[in-house]
Amino acid sequence: MTSYAPATQDQLLAIRVNAGIEELAQSERFAAAEADLVEAIVEGVGQFAAGEFAPLNRIGDLEGARLENGVVRLPEGFDQAYGAYVEQGWNAIASPEDFGGQGLPFTLACNVLENLGSANMAFTLLPMLSVGAIEAIEHHGSDAQKARYLPKLVSGAWSGTMNLTEPQAGSDVGALRATATPITDGEHAGKYLIKGQKIYITWGEHELAENIIHLVLARLPDAPEGTRGISLFVVPKYHLKEDGSLGSRNDLRCVSLEHKLGINASPTCVMNYGDNDECIGELIGAENRGLMAMFTMMNNARINVGNQGVQISERAKQQALSYAQDRVQSARAGAPGKDPVAIVEHPDVRRMLLRMKALTEGARALLYYCAGQVDRGSLGDDVAKSRGEVLVPLLKAWGTDVGVEVAGIGIQVHGGMGFIEETGAAQHWRDAKIAPIYEGTNGIQAADLVTRKLGLDGGEALTALLDDIARDAAGEPELKALAQDCLEVARWMQGDASLDDRLAGSVPFCTMMAVAVAGWQLMRQRDAVAAGAAPALADTKPVSARFFLTRIVPEAAGLKGSAMAGAELLYALPAERLAG
Amino acid sequence: MTSYAPATQDQLLAIRVNAGIEELAQSERFAAAEADLVEAIVEGVGQFAAGEFAPLNRIGDLEGARLENGVVRLPEGFDQAYGAYVEQGWNAIASPEDFGGQGLPFTLACNVLENLGSANMAFTLLPMLSVGAIEAIEHHGSDAQKARYLPKLVSGAWSGTMNLTEPQAGSDVGALRATATPITDGEHAGKYLIKGQKIYITWGEHELAENIIHLVLARLPDAPEGTRGISLFVVPKYHLKEDGSLGSRNDLRCVSLEHKLGINASPTCVMNYGDNDECIGELIGAENRGLMAMFTMMNNARINVGNQGVQISERAKQQALSYAQDRVQSARAGAPGKDPVAIVEHPDVRRMLLRMKALTEGARALLYYCAGQVDRGSLGDDVAKSRGEVLVPLLKAWGTDVGVEVAGIGIQVHGGMGFIEETGAAQHWRDAKIAPIYEGTNGIQAADLVTRKLGLDGGEALTALLDDIARDAAGEPELKALAQDCLEVARWMQGDASLDDRLAGSVPFCTMMAVAVAGWQLMRQRDAVAAGAAPALADTKPVSARFFLTRIVPEAAGLKGSAMAGAELLYALPAERLAG
Repeated sequence: MTSYAPATQDQLLAIRVNAGIEELAQSERFAAAEADLVEAIVEGVGQFAAGEFAPLNRIGDLEGARLENGVVRLPEGFDQAYGAYVEQGWNAIASPEDFGGQGLPFTLACNVLENLGSANMAFTLLPMLSVGAIEAIEHHGSDAQKARYLPKLVSGAWSGTMNLTEPQAGSDVGALRATATPITDGEHAGKYLIKGQKIYITWGEHELAENIIHLVLARLPDAPEGTRGISLFVVPKYHLKEDGSLGSRNDLRCVSLEHKLGINASPTCVMNYGDNDECIGELIGAENRGLMAMFTMMNNARINVGNQGVQISERAKQQALSYAQDRVQSARAGAPGKDPVAIVEHPDVRRMLLRMKALTEGARALLYYCAGQVDRGSLGDDVAKSRGEVLVPLLKAWGTDVGVEVAGIGIQVHGGMGFIEETGAAQHWRDAKIAPIYEGTNGIQAADLVTRKLGLDGGEALTALLDDIARDAAGEPELKALAQDCLEVARWMQGDASLDDRLAGSVPFCTMMAVAVAGWQLMRQRDAVAAGAAPALADTKPVSARFFLTRIVPEAAGLKGSAMAGAELLYALPAERLAG
Repeated sequence: MTSYAPATQDQLLAIRVNAGIEELAQSERFAAAEADLVEAIVEGVGQFAAGEFAPLNRIGDLEGARLENGVVRLPEGFDQAYGAYVEQGWNAIASPEDFGGQGLPFTLACNVLENLGSANMAFTLLPMLSVGAIEAIEHHGSDAQKARYLPKLVSGAWSGTMNLTEPQAGSDVGALRATATPITDGEHAGKYLIKGQKIYITWGEHELAENIIHLVLARLPDAPEGTRGISLFVVPKYHLKEDGSLGSRNDLRCVSLEHKLGINASPTCVMNYGDNDECIGELIGAENRGLMAMFTMMNNARINVGNQGVQISERAKQQALSYAQDRVQSARAGAPGKDPVAIVEHPDVRRMLLRMKALTEGARALLYYCAGQVDRGSLGDDVAKSRGEVLVPLLKAWGTDVGVEVAGIGIQVHGGMGFIEETGAAQHWRDAKIAPIYEGTNGIQAADLVTRKLGLDGGEALTALLDDIARDAAGEPELKALAQDCLEVARWMQGDASLDDRLAGSVPFCTMMAVAVAGWQLMRQRDAVAAGAAPALADTKPVSARFFLTRIVPEAAGLKGSAMAGAELLYALPAERLAG
């Protein structure tokens, strides 16, 4: 496995052009995000990630997380690296200043995650999950709860988890059965007894942080069925004493770890709460409003997962390019001499590498465009907020598909060596494959697009985005055609199409939309570079943008037939005949 | 992991319609291939594969092949299953009758491999590699060599290997350095001392067969450099005595096994020949003509790898469908009730399952169409022979891409469970990923298409195929359009395009061609079913064919831009700037 070299220049370009950091810094709230600080953060976290997180990527995969007598062990080095991460303050970039955060734009938190995750995706799930806990408590906790939990979560001294899934309740969160019973007297009066089993709990147990703050969805007695009867609880691994110091162990434990395809350094825990009927939690927010509270976090969590597609693409691309430059094999076809050349010189290897590069940069452009809209939304710009919401499913679904595709091409570039685990290329592909699944499968993202997002602001949120692309793409016939195709699909879906028709075409439509936006944002990067925005990329950006616009964009247009084909054929056979 | 249920009806349909078995059976050579026998074989091997090979698939992945003191150990059960395979005669289907084979069409040998490989891809590499050894000796060995080696190889009592790759000689076989020194006196006079290391030797060492016949490429003293100085040698693990019985051990050994992404039950060996300067081999065929001899086998070997794409697709499809029928989650969107349904009822899950089905059946149709052309070619039909040669890279490249795609969708259908190794879906995806790499990477297949195959028979071989599709597709606008797109690309490549331009567009063009042929062959299946060919598929085939023709075919048309984009952009940057 090669080392990780942060794509600092391309990240800075995306932060400037696609997220529009300079405009954000003109607001009072984000006034600190000046160019110097932004550069210091992007360069600093890139170096930190390369130096501390990247060297642990292979050993994390090889040895994985292990459960020993209820304690999760990580390979040597994880403890020190997490300590350094906390000490250097990287956890606190975008968290509220009142609780020790820096209050910087979400865009910059995305960059911290991007660099850490490129270096070590499995490890980075630890801080990534903590973000959700911080947001939940920040937005829904009482003042006392904020004061009690946020400072340590913001610094990273404690970590957080999200507990939604149960064996029978995956995509259908409303089917969960974990219970919360009010405690009416004694020292814990006003709190709740939590009982139930949760699965797929990322970093649910470990010893890298001093405490783990579990956010757990459960049902109160007599709660309504389904999603309207779910409440959110904060359940710490160690109880807190009155003075905030750590007390005794709460009644919760990790009973097993999953044996997974990838992200092996990330313990995926089966968590039991209340085996001894002594698991104590506090209600966060209103009763039966737990799922709404979770939705608050979901937007950013989905962006963070889309970000993982960018992360793994960048790393896989670097690995493949490095190999292609070193590996000498065969003479160049048609060349006068017979001397073998580095395989990067062969046309199809170059095509693969350029495709990896263009997809990675396109996904990155989409990521920061989306993050910038979220930041604008948090400043009160409702149009940007809606646009951000339209972009989230595009980024999460397509970004993670790109991660898998690029990592897969990366293996192919290596030939036989790619199939050998020691090389490291295969790990990226295995790691990448979780991202299209968790935080709402990509099918669920696409369903979100063609249901909620399609009609947002009376349909305007989506069509205005496409209008913007079509307008700016006057000089790019392929992109203009794709934007018009997207508009045609969107109008059909907003009009004649049945709900089933929309869902049947949702995934291809989601891909078309994402490629259109990514192509547009790459075009904006290219134009900015032409205007002098990033001299270091003056030669490369026109090439990757052109590859994207003339190769990848037309492919997406080929999905129009699938997007508009309707649902009838899908139900032409009863389910059991799909086997025949 | 679910069990394996052979797709017997769809296989029989493809063997009849796409391979045209009834026409083959009208030849004197293949007269035995009557309908009853064909059905008996397809049903019999399907049952055998499901009963003996499939149960070993998961344990083979979990425990893998292990090297202990130079001996490769397989998990319990492999020995008995291989013994049953040999005993029942499945190894001998298409081998020459003079040496104990049944002399049946290659098409039926493809079906044996299809069923075995769907059941257990890693295990099936053992008989699959033996086929190559049989063909090499059959076509290039002396009568004495044939008599000595073929009967036991044909029965399966002995297995065979192919030894091409060395660390510096992968895709560029001509760079190999293994040596062969003539022995001029003593008991081995006339034979050769073989010396060198070979890597990636599939089933290079094991104890399931009584002997292993290694076919090794090596250089004679003073041989010309490059591909014209390579000779082929047969190097048995155990020497043969005069009476054909096994003698002492030859000087060759497996020094290590690769730790791979998948196909873990298949030992991938580093083989050392002649560590003690006592490794003895016999020349097969003429001096310095070893690579030509290898090419004889390559066509069928590539078909067999394309077949693996079909195999893994079928198995992954069955696994996903089974899960989707069992897993209950969420109510149907828009349904009046709120009762949760099996996920197969959700539109996007159905889309995924139908896509898996259509791709699998399309790849199968292409496989048997290709196999049928090879059989016709072996009967002296030169037009069919050329067409088969055009089809080989399409099948190998696209078929294996389909394998990875379908297995990947299979994981997605499972949601979080797909990422858990115990489920079995992930194994199919890991196993599938080798097939686009070995036996000539898919990039090399595409290069073969746009160089050798593009000009075959003055270009006629390729364009006649496309003309046939365009003619038959009169009622299928998407397929007709794709065939015309392919013709346009082909004529540009046969005309104005430079070699670099052709290679730059080779992979997208290869995909376009493969999808066009597969769509055409599925259309032929559908029409045959409508005419009564397979009553069991009367309801299903129109659906899968329509899905393929209206969804997958238009996607392939979206590749036209990439196919004709030329090479200039690929070389716009020096290699080292691809990182920036």
